[in-house]
Amino acid sequence: MVELISAVEATDVRFPTSRELDGSDAMNPEPDYSAAYVTIRTSAEETGHGLAFTVGRGNDVEVAAVRAIAPLVVGLPVEKVLADPGGFSRRLTGDSQLRWLGPDKGAIHMAAAAIINAAWDLHGRRTGKPVWRLLAELSPDDLADLVDFRYLQDVLTRDEAVDILRSAQPGRAERTAHLLEHGYPAYTSTPGWLGYSDDKLVRLAQRAVADGFTQIKLKVGADRSADVHRMRLAREAVGPDIRIAADANQAWGVPQAIEWMERLAPYDPYWIEEPTSPDDILGHAAIRRAVAPIKVATGEHASNQVMFKQFLQAGAIDILQLDATRTAGVTENVAILLLAAKFGVPVCPHAGGVGLCEMVQHLALFDYVAVSGSQENRAIEYIDHLHEEFTAPVLIRDGRYRAPAAPGIGAELRPESVLEHRFPDGSAWQAAIA
Amino acid sequence: MVELISAVEATDVRFPTSRELDGSDAMNPEPDYSAAYVTIRTSAEETGHGLAFTVGRGNDVEVAAVRAIAPLVVGLPVEKVLADPGGFSRRLTGDSQLRWLGPDKGAIHMAAAAIINAAWDLHGRRTGKPVWRLLAELSPDDLADLVDFRYLQDVLTRDEAVDILRSAQPGRAERTAHLLEHGYPAYTSTPGWLGYSDDKLVRLAQRAVADGFTQIKLKVGADRSADVHRMRLAREAVGPDIRIAADANQAWGVPQAIEWMERLAPYDPYWIEEPTSPDDILGHAAIRRAVAPIKVATGEHASNQVMFKQFLQAGAIDILQLDATRTAGVTENVAILLLAAKFGVPVCPHAGGVGLCEMVQHLALFDYVAVSGSQENRAIEYIDHLHEEFTAPVLIRDGRYRAPAAPGIGAELRPESVLEHRFPDGSAWQAAIA
Repeated sequence: MVELISAVEATDVRFPTSRELDGSDAMNPEPDYSAAYVTIRTSAEETGHGLAFTVGRGNDVEVAAVRAIAPLVVGLPVEKVLADPGGFSRRLTGDSQLRWLGPDKGAIHMAAAAIINAAWDLHGRRTGKPVWRLLAELSPDDLADLVDFRYLQDVLTRDEAVDILRSAQPGRAERTAHLLEHGYPAYTSTPGWLGYSDDKLVRLAQRAVADGFTQIKLKVGADRSADVHRMRLAREAVGPDIRIAADANQAWGVPQAIEWMERLAPYDPYWIEEPTSPDDILGHAAIRRAVAPIKVATGEHASNQVMFKQFLQAGAIDILQLDATRTAGVTENVAILLLAAKFGVPVCPHAGGVGLCEMVQHLALFDYVAVSGSQENRAIEYIDHLHEEFTAPVLIRDGRYRAPAAPGIGAELRPESVLEHRFPDGSAWQAAIA
Repeated sequence: MVELISAVEATDVRFPTSRELDGSDAMNPEPDYSAAYVTIRTSAEETGHGLAFTVGRGNDVEVAAVRAIAPLVVGLPVEKVLADPGGFSRRLTGDSQLRWLGPDKGAIHMAAAAIINAAWDLHGRRTGKPVWRLLAELSPDDLADLVDFRYLQDVLTRDEAVDILRSAQPGRAERTAHLLEHGYPAYTSTPGWLGYSDDKLVRLAQRAVADGFTQIKLKVGADRSADVHRMRLAREAVGPDIRIAADANQAWGVPQAIEWMERLAPYDPYWIEEPTSPDDILGHAAIRRAVAPIKVATGEHASNQVMFKQFLQAGAIDILQLDATRTAGVTENVAILLLAAKFGVPVCPHAGGVGLCEMVQHLALFDYVAVSGSQENRAIEYIDHLHEEFTAPVLIRDGRYRAPAAPGIGAELRPESVLEHRFPDGSAWQAAIA
């Protein structure tokens, strides 16, 4: 009997993180880290898990978006879906009616990402492999088949993509072995939330260095004098050799970003992240020209591969920060990694939130083994939130991600955690209401 | 007693247009024109109507998005909302949790548009004015207050905006009188849907000319030979003096768009609309350089003012096609009209769908009276679908929109139509199921 996808379930899961000001930044003062949590079930009782990350209100809209896509998936033969992940992804993002809500952006695209990642998770579980390894063992042609080149061909053709992947083929085995032994660099954003006191900032920055991190990140953008003060404190706490990234979370217009960074420059910020609107490609390019040698980083809110194509074409970014659930999951991220490789721009994935560290590590590890072949100036964001909610939490040692060994993509929440945090009927929320 | 907003209702309304292939194009083969229909109610039993247009599946997601925003609106004093429409708009689009689903794009932004337009409708009804007139009578400073300049200031400052509006002040009365007498140019897309036979195309094109239209539009992009054939038929049907626009609805990559337009060039297309991804600013710029003197038009899927800013900065478009419900309604469209005026790019609003003609005419008329002061090379799209469903349908005479006189923005559906087309329980859908 042919195994079919029998259900695509979506659950509204929210964590009351705003109570501690974890995750507070210039544009997100009180986030409740949340997930539209997706479970794909098959007629053979296999499962795959994915999620779309949000920051609270609106998580119900994301759940509705998953449910709107689900009928395109339920009833498909599992083998067919897993044999052609590129076609599966285009089926979801290209639906002629649903795409009107994007196209390729916002709630509907994030919902597609959650389902696409759940399908990759299912694929990993069936083959007993973590997704990074599953990807890293595909041939250059199979990897190129994941990519929708329609809107990329002026900058990256299929032939060029295959060439990039072929050049990285020789060292795959060595780099896999290196990952298993040494892991992949991380940087930590834990010390730098806006809501933290000076003492807490200094203490957490020093602890980060003691824990082996060579880069930390500070949120900026709400108050210029306070930012100068906090950057100075952080620089004094970690000394001159630790990189300090600054993250404005879209707080500024272009001229304001440039002026603000002049004030922070004496404390040697490594990059400025999201200095302005995530849609402003030309604005990022202008900021980059003005603030050099401080680097410009963005990507967690870039909607899709067409936006990344242009950020690279326009010379607008030094660092590309892809996200696991904003673009169309693993599949579109393979295209984004190939674009970054073509332009020689290092990828430092965005993480934190709910399960983003767990998922995004697979993309960075795959990139190292099979695309860029390099860890130079690359690091995955790490934030010590909510990992305990997952069945296979990330493992960090000496400031590095250990290569995950568990099959799948790492997005499975513990069943008890789902029950407790289901919104609004889970016990964590019922307690808050009472 | 202070009048408060007492409810924001959202209804899933869908019209089964796919049965006739009305609205069929290269990316939307079978649209069911739909609306997340919004009614604002006040404690004094006043109402305002707005909607977000979609093409069928996903309309329920849009309804969920309206309901997610509604709690930010219910309970606000009506006077306060109407006295500061700019602040009201930023309240909706800037919510620190909901904006994660965009920001400023996709389902959540369109939902904000529906509510913002409903508030403008309420404002028009209270003052007894159509919204174009309400806007055209605001002072330059009040109009500038509508605009969020945070991400525009590198290209358009508040002072520049006020200057543009002040230069247009002298002729306001004359242009208003001209509108009331002569209306505003329209072009028609009715003849050109992909699903139509040759006979129907020729017949409708000839009828359009007989009806006084000086521009028609053809859908292209699905089949190159068929497009050449249809362009030739249309050109023969209307003669050399009628403008024929072509609309690819995002079907092409950049090189493909350029090749395709070389084949259509002998039939003198006036513009090529949406030749590629609506996010590809640099791609549009490349296409524009290659296909000149054929013009490049886009905008119905441009997410927000930051995208329009860049299309203009990059010299990527000859014609700006704003939409009534994709960006944040009237309020953000005032910013977009100001950007277009600064760059001297004519605005030809996107319309059709459900109620888009009814709403968008207010923006074009306002632009003529108080912003650009010109009708040159400007025309509002017109499609003869679904107008009978509205309480104040557009009036077209001799290929021109008559200036609407009814108070409000024109988005009110007839109550019987809402009952009939409510999805899935309305009689139009229950009949289809049975």
